[in-house]
Amino acid sequence: MNNSLSQILKEIKPLDREAMKAARIRQDELTKPRGSLGQLEELSIKIAGIRGKIVGGFEHKVIVTMAADHGVVSRGVTLYPQEVTRQMVSNFLSGGAGINVLARFIGARVVVVDMGVIGGFEPHANLTCKMVDFGTKDMTKGSAMTRQQALDAIEGGIEVVEAEVAKGLDIVGTGDMGIGNTTASSAICAAITGEPIEKVTGRGEGLGDEQLAHKVKVIQKALELNKPDPSDPIDVLSKVGGFEIGGLVGVMLGAAAHHIPVVIDGFISGAAALIATELSPGLKDYLVAAHLSAESGHKALLEYLGLTPLLNLEMRLGEGTGAALGIAIVEAAVKTLAEMATFSEASVSEAQKEAD
Amino acid sequence: MNNSLSQILKEIKPLDREAMKAARIRQDELTKPRGSLGQLEELSIKIAGIRGKIVGGFEHKVIVTMAADHGVVSRGVTLYPQEVTRQMVSNFLSGGAGINVLARFIGARVVVVDMGVIGGFEPHANLTCKMVDFGTKDMTKGSAMTRQQALDAIEGGIEVVEAEVAKGLDIVGTGDMGIGNTTASSAICAAITGEPIEKVTGRGEGLGDEQLAHKVKVIQKALELNKPDPSDPIDVLSKVGGFEIGGLVGVMLGAAAHHIPVVIDGFISGAAALIATELSPGLKDYLVAAHLSAESGHKALLEYLGLTPLLNLEMRLGEGTGAALGIAIVEAAVKTLAEMATFSEASVSEAQKEAD
Repeated sequence: MNNSLSQILKEIKPLDREAMKAARIRQDELTKPRGSLGQLEELSIKIAGIRGKIVGGFEHKVIVTMAADHGVVSRGVTLYPQEVTRQMVSNFLSGGAGINVLARFIGARVVVVDMGVIGGFEPHANLTCKMVDFGTKDMTKGSAMTRQQALDAIEGGIEVVEAEVAKGLDIVGTGDMGIGNTTASSAICAAITGEPIEKVTGRGEGLGDEQLAHKVKVIQKALELNKPDPSDPIDVLSKVGGFEIGGLVGVMLGAAAHHIPVVIDGFISGAAALIATELSPGLKDYLVAAHLSAESGHKALLEYLGLTPLLNLEMRLGEGTGAALGIAIVEAAVKTLAEMATFSEASVSEAQKEAD
Repeated sequence: MNNSLSQILKEIKPLDREAMKAARIRQDELTKPRGSLGQLEELSIKIAGIRGKIVGGFEHKVIVTMAADHGVVSRGVTLYPQEVTRQMVSNFLSGGAGINVLARFIGARVVVVDMGVIGGFEPHANLTCKMVDFGTKDMTKGSAMTRQQALDAIEGGIEVVEAEVAKGLDIVGTGDMGIGNTTASSAICAAITGEPIEKVTGRGEGLGDEQLAHKVKVIQKALELNKPDPSDPIDVLSKVGGFEIGGLVGVMLGAAAHHIPVVIDGFISGAAALIATELSPGLKDYLVAAHLSAESGHKALLEYLGLTPLLNLEMRLGEGTGAALGIAIVEAAVKTLAEMATFSEASVSEAQKEAD
């Protein structure tokens, strides 16, 4: 393990229980029946625990969208050609993708990161380059990347989030782009959770039945050949992962080390969260699951993580689109805690008798 | 039926199929796998059908929060004393309630309407008075209101929404405040859907088991005494309803007549939607269910209406708080449709083979 990663893992601390207690007390004094804001109340308390205080909103919101290519695409596991990864990064940079629209809507900036897109890019003001290699190797023929590359990808993610912390960062959402990355994510999910491959493998951009069966076989072959060790998350990432997935692991760990809440998107971010929480079980408290993706396997993944998704809108686009909507819900939650009047401030009578 | 209501009912037209077709075509040209924005895609198409065109957002967002008192409170069906209705209206006017916070967050204005709060209010710039009477009568002793009062309440709601249309209105959310109004709403729900009272009666602000059993008995008594006619929604509203519920019926019908989408909040708005859709079945196409309330009975109610809730955050506050978050989701949906680049605009390759 490299210095940067081992240092970050040491810096991830338990949530601030005093701040959470203060938030809970305030929630119960606000002009509403206790508990009537449901998950918004729990969210506001969790965020207080992460930030160490009750916060009134998020001035600096960031979606980190990481892109990379996947060697396994040569096995015919996708509907879209591999060059779409590169084309979509260009779309992100010109502001025309779903994540651009939703990030603008919630007032977040999008940080686009090249973690290893085939062909690379000319320098661009809105593109961060943490390229590890021009795509992973085909995991049905060997390890997707070397162990050092896996560590480099994670370190790249840590550097990205630390650069944002330096600019000002209050909450971060994770997103991905990589043709073939549901295949890598399903392989990670099967390796770590021990669930059957069929259960954690979905249709990606819309595979038919035969294509899905083929994808399952490809993942099976990769797992049989590489035998990733579930007790060694870096081994799993290097053997069947992806550079953008490794980068997102770094973003999650780096954010938690800096007491920044992380709103994770769908299935690919979930796979990164599996790796990251195996590295640091305490990370879980810093994660908010934005939504339940329509990608089958995501439900089992979130259950393994012990996270309840905020939204279930049958989305499966990735890019951080679910995370963007999730951040809006989290911000709504913290604003109710900070801005609502208390019973005494508003001279409203309290309940005659609390619920039993 | 009075002139205003019968006129409004005639003005509720089917959705614009051409606009919906154009929206569907555009959705399928946007840079994402088809269907990958899930419910956001369907929402954007529905809104195009309501507005008669593809829209890029909502400049004028309004939450109409209607308040009234309920005679049935004297039967001991609530935890909070009756004066809380009045106190909470004051809280709305000073900006300290949950709905104020969430409306500010989504950029909506809150229109607070006194439909019949005991004691009334001094004139206030932010309060609209459509008071029918100082609270309904106790429905366990007779009709909650007269048939004329039910019509007056609906007409009041139509007037409120028409005043907003005159100022500019692109989307409206509904909200309520009225100690005792889950009792009235459960009675309406049982009367119209035919579901057992136990199934559609919940804990309101947090009743215990015994208090809940008592509430069920009170509703049973009211229904047995008044025998509301499920085929006559005005009869149901007058016998076991509330003034704010009648007002919300008017808001829904009036908005639909003006091609304005209506985002309905939780259980009380749902009860109003039951009355309103019985009056005008075509109204259903103009309604968006913001969320599934934690109030038991709401699920059966939404299933009867045939509406799928956008959110399920275990909220049960009312006021329009769920509707506010729902409007944010709807706005996210229309923005993706309007602002995302198409495959040809962004020079992104399309899928090699569509899903079968």
